[in-house]
Amino acid sequence: MKDENVLKRLRIIEGHLKGIIRMVEEDTYCIDVIRQVQAVEAALNKVSAQILEGHLNSCVITAVQGEDPAERQRVLKEVLEVFETSTKV
Amino acid sequence: MKDENVLKRLRIIEGHLKGIIRMVEEDTYCIDVIRQVQAVEAALNKVSAQILEGHLNSCVITAVQGEDPAERQRVLKEVLEVFETSTKV
Amino acid sequence: MKDENVLKRLRIIEGHLKGIIRMVEEDTYCIDVIRQVQAVEAALNKVSAQILEGHLNSCVITAVQGEDPAERQRVLKEVLEVFETSTKV
Amino acid sequence: MKDENVLKRLRIIEGHLKGIIRMVEEDTYCIDVIRQVQAVEAALNKVSAQILEGHLNSCVITAVQGEDPAERQRVLKEVLEVFETSTKV
Repeated sequence: MKDENVLKRLRIIEGHLKGIIRMVEEDTYCIDVIRQVQAVEAALNKVSAQILEGHLNSCVITAVQGEDPAERQRVLKEVLEVFETSTKV
Repeated sequence: MKDENVLKRLRIIEGHLKGIIRMVEEDTYCIDVIRQVQAVEAALNKVSAQILEGHLNSCVITAVQGEDPAERQRVLKEVLEVFETSTKV
Repeated sequence: MKDENVLKRLRIIEGHLKGIIRMVEEDTYCIDVIRQVQAVEAALNKVSAQILEGHLNSCVITAVQGEDPAERQRVLKEVLEVFETSTKV
Repeated sequence: MKDENVLKRLRIIEGHLKGIIRMVEEDTYCIDVIRQVQAVEAALNKVSAQILEGHLNSCVITAVQGEDPAERQRVLKEVLEVFETSTKV
């Protein structure tokens, strides 16, 4: 799923994370650091949603329309699992 | 999607919530109330996952295998939206 | 911590939850049910925040200004724990 | 709040994120990428909790025991805000 848009977002997040590391190295006020960590998490949620969107519109359609019921079940179960994890992180 | 298992879980959660209301009426220690509220949220997450599981294995399969591309898009978009919301609540 | 405002919110949430149970009994479309469950979770998050606000401005201040270091540690640890749980539900 | 332990965790997360970028560059299966993104989010939650713990045991105690009521309110409000945000990311 090489997706230039996803890559671009992830590299921005990487830069954001490097900035947080610098903040901690420079003894920045704790709450400001936590706020930036939370901003990174919000950005990661958006990346996940974007990847999932691509996945639903490609692999999920292929598997659900395919002939193999086990593969269909596997793919739908994975979607359910990422949903379940998303309620816990 | 009348699902007796989902209904049973929701009624247990309703009882749990009534218990929390009673706790607040009786001036229970704040942190104990918050913990119970968080337990109700965890239980609601499980209900959502269970409903989504049924949905993926019925409506989503039907729509994705169906002839109507607009309906397929609509159904997949809804799955994406519940995922996006789950990262925010 | 009998708080009329918290009680009022919790009773509204109870009504909301009863509505969800009715939706499931009447076979409402799965996604609409999930959306309502997520709305209840968002409302519960607001209640938790409101209770925590009261707690910080009363018990936490009392404990931190008090003479007992063990009690102070206990109260601050509880605040940390509700934060940790909030990242998981 | 230069905290070597926090820094160490953040650098591990940075490495993890670089690994995810590589996964996307190499067209790794979408769901495997999402799972790694969610693992990074869980790790960030732990870092936030660790930073908050240090904050509660230093700045919060100082401010709450201090003479300035406005400063005390400010510090407690910040704790509430990071809690509120944590329920949304």
